[in-house]
Amino acid sequence: MTDTYQELCERGRQSATLDSISALMGWDQETYMPAGGSAARAEQAAALAAIRHDMKTDPRVGELIEACESNGTMSDPDSPEAANVREFRRDYDLATKLPKDLVTELAKTAALGQEAWKSARADSDFDTFRPWLEKLVGLARRKAECYGAPKGGELYDALLNVYEPGATSAEIESAFVPLGKRLGDLVAELNESGTPPETEVLNAEIPADRQHEFGLFVLDAIGFDLRSGRLDVTTHPFCEGVAPGDTRLTTRYRDEHFTDALYGTMHEAGHGIYEQNLPKGQGHGPADCFGQPLGESISLGIHESQSRMWENFVGRSRAFWEWALPHAQKMLGDALAGVTPEQLYRAVNTARPSLIRVEADEVTYNLHILIRFEMERAIIGGDLEVGDIPAAWNEKYKHYLGVDVPDDRRGCLQDIHWSGGMMGYFPTYCLGNLYAAQLWESINEQIPDLDAQISRGEFGPLKDWLARNIHQHGRRYRAGELCQRLTGTPLGADPLLRHLEGKLRPIYGIA
Amino acid sequence: MTDTYQELCERGRQSATLDSISALMGWDQETYMPAGGSAARAEQAAALAAIRHDMKTDPRVGELIEACESNGTMSDPDSPEAANVREFRRDYDLATKLPKDLVTELAKTAALGQEAWKSARADSDFDTFRPWLEKLVGLARRKAECYGAPKGGELYDALLNVYEPGATSAEIESAFVPLGKRLGDLVAELNESGTPPETEVLNAEIPADRQHEFGLFVLDAIGFDLRSGRLDVTTHPFCEGVAPGDTRLTTRYRDEHFTDALYGTMHEAGHGIYEQNLPKGQGHGPADCFGQPLGESISLGIHESQSRMWENFVGRSRAFWEWALPHAQKMLGDALAGVTPEQLYRAVNTARPSLIRVEADEVTYNLHILIRFEMERAIIGGDLEVGDIPAAWNEKYKHYLGVDVPDDRRGCLQDIHWSGGMMGYFPTYCLGNLYAAQLWESINEQIPDLDAQISRGEFGPLKDWLARNIHQHGRRYRAGELCQRLTGTPLGADPLLRHLEGKLRPIYGIA
Repeated sequence: MTDTYQELCERGRQSATLDSISALMGWDQETYMPAGGSAARAEQAAALAAIRHDMKTDPRVGELIEACESNGTMSDPDSPEAANVREFRRDYDLATKLPKDLVTELAKTAALGQEAWKSARADSDFDTFRPWLEKLVGLARRKAECYGAPKGGELYDALLNVYEPGATSAEIESAFVPLGKRLGDLVAELNESGTPPETEVLNAEIPADRQHEFGLFVLDAIGFDLRSGRLDVTTHPFCEGVAPGDTRLTTRYRDEHFTDALYGTMHEAGHGIYEQNLPKGQGHGPADCFGQPLGESISLGIHESQSRMWENFVGRSRAFWEWALPHAQKMLGDALAGVTPEQLYRAVNTARPSLIRVEADEVTYNLHILIRFEMERAIIGGDLEVGDIPAAWNEKYKHYLGVDVPDDRRGCLQDIHWSGGMMGYFPTYCLGNLYAAQLWESINEQIPDLDAQISRGEFGPLKDWLARNIHQHGRRYRAGELCQRLTGTPLGADPLLRHLEGKLRPIYGIA
Repeated sequence: MTDTYQELCERGRQSATLDSISALMGWDQETYMPAGGSAARAEQAAALAAIRHDMKTDPRVGELIEACESNGTMSDPDSPEAANVREFRRDYDLATKLPKDLVTELAKTAALGQEAWKSARADSDFDTFRPWLEKLVGLARRKAECYGAPKGGELYDALLNVYEPGATSAEIESAFVPLGKRLGDLVAELNESGTPPETEVLNAEIPADRQHEFGLFVLDAIGFDLRSGRLDVTTHPFCEGVAPGDTRLTTRYRDEHFTDALYGTMHEAGHGIYEQNLPKGQGHGPADCFGQPLGESISLGIHESQSRMWENFVGRSRAFWEWALPHAQKMLGDALAGVTPEQLYRAVNTARPSLIRVEADEVTYNLHILIRFEMERAIIGGDLEVGDIPAAWNEKYKHYLGVDVPDDRRGCLQDIHWSGGMMGYFPTYCLGNLYAAQLWESINEQIPDLDAQISRGEFGPLKDWLARNIHQHGRRYRAGELCQRLTGTPLGADPLLRHLEGKLRPIYGIA
């Protein structure tokens, strides 16, 4: 490799190292930071953001990329080097479009905004959060303006593109709206013509410490490496791929509905297994591409496909409970005595409109996302004022899910994303479901006895398939290209609908 | 204030902000970082150390200091500005003496060295740690050479001076050697002529979670602000003043000897209360000197005087147990039923030679430090090879404490300091005991009913005295000057000896 390319990678590594420090600070803020530390944390975040920004926008990086583009480094377009330079270019162009003061301001406001959100959420008091959200929306719009709307697109697309390269509102709308329609029909069909499964079994009271122990057991079984990771408790579950060899998950426990915490854990583990198997020098193979695009995840949509797959396609399957229940009965105490795998399988596969996204079932979850997509698009598009968010939120929940939102805590204050300045992020959750369903069909073709393996607690072949076909490629392929390569077709809604209809109708007794 | 001075303070703040991030990383490494993250953590530490070093040694800082020294900022030598500029000068001169590659190498080796120490300690295997220690000693010597030995002093003094400004080996030797002699005599007198107190009460088995709850209760009572701090568990207890409003303590629990954890907690709380009351904008008064010397602690010796005061002068007093025992009996379960304050007071005041420094009693603790001082001095002076450390350690423990060291885990591998590259740090522990004793006499003159207050759980007046007379001054006075101002005399060994002899002889039944 040329010295130029080496220097580019070296600079990427330095920059990624600072990013990893920032990730640690974010994790700490959500887990163990005392409340009194929030002002200082904002100052730390802003200071580091400024340094990271300088590093990422250093004109020398631009020169190196330009040199690599013209010196033959990319002559084989399928080479790792070509992919790296292509993606370094994308990152550099995005970074140089933002002025440093905006980056610093965003980091600081996000840190303070999250603290304001936490207390507003606890008190269900939107008004105290409103000035922060106005500031955050203003900053998000400024950010979008700096990136610029894509040709023929809208301002919001500029934010989408950060999380899901190339995604546009128009495309997402054209997928989500019919999906929402058919899922709405499915929910109506199930609840009007079918018999909802018995969910009494989920009311078993199980202490948090036992749930935690069981969660760790499942993590270990499905292949999340706990020597290079951990599981903590936060208000809002997340996965932070802090650094190579250091991937941290969080979940939350209630005494009832132990499966909420379990699926939270399995969901984040899906993200975590992706992070742990990226080729960034973590002891899983020789490649150490830390700081290079080849060591990074493709997009949030693909990331979410991994979390949804472990949560829903594995975790909510009959086969999973055939394996997991005997262990759960041993570890969770008497509360599950006499329960059958079939009972649990049915109980965790309902389609019941509800208020909280992260606790939503596999069907209605997508409607929660549709609502957020429509709202964000309107907010960034200037069609919805921040002060009108609670009313608009409640109206959409009534329209799409038929539920009345009793307070903002269970309404527009439930999610952390906006308080951290993340707008344009939510749609990737639904894209993840679509990708997961489409990949799942291909995986089952290639591992015909996958279901039997799962029922025996053999998760290795699935994990290896994902690592080999997705994780190990880093950002070598864009999301759409990867989907086409692995499934033979572009992303579509049919696999997800087949999966949901095929699972839910029998459970609800519909032929 | 001049623009120059303002810019100097602003740069100090930026630099302190990055220091605070580094502190968080250090805390995380000892508490929650998964083992797999250690290589990445070393890379993070090195990257940040390089940036911090650039910031601290920026020639612009030197220019600003020089300008302040000549533009009248220091015209009133007693002003806060004069103190700040004087101390900024000290920091700048120290920082610019170290080349960047050494700083980076030290940060990285310390991070990796700590991991190596952890596993070597667990296996009691000095040989696996030896190459790391050789590297760390080499780096410490290089560091000392960069600073240079003070006039007429030795190389080791250059390291002492980092932690205790102005301290020299010769002075420390002249205080420690007679102190060691008289304490050795005291230990002999107590154990030959006296009757050791009954310590059976300490064998009560108390679960860690209850001890933790009680520890938090005591922290709150003595004035450590848990809203701006926390208490976690680590192998080696410490206090990390992460950032303004964010001070973190750790302790460790065993089922027996609950007072070990309690005194660990109270010790670290003493450090923590100092950190929480420094004028760095934490809501304890209007001053926000974060990043200025006026917002920082004086020296490790003074820091240690605060921890030792709460641990030993408060915590090991009869009055403390009169207050604490009824609460302990409520919170710690039946194991302490029927125990009297007098029994506990006597049980925690023994003078019994032992192996582990952090569990040593108040008398023999100083002998543990004397040993480390002699060893470090010999190591840095080139008179002791790393490979000979275990033998030398064991020999000194036999000589000064009369104990046989059964393995390196309980010998030269017991402390974290050297693995983090900290040589020259240990003597400050004994200096802390001396300062604490001398301050304690003055405090008792000024708060004559302090003992009665403590027996009623009223710790506010003591905490306020410390905050007002020590904490709020930051680095305005050097340690020796502060001691002279507050006690009327230079630091001496007599108050500590008076305290120990006066407490221990009656307990051992010696008139």
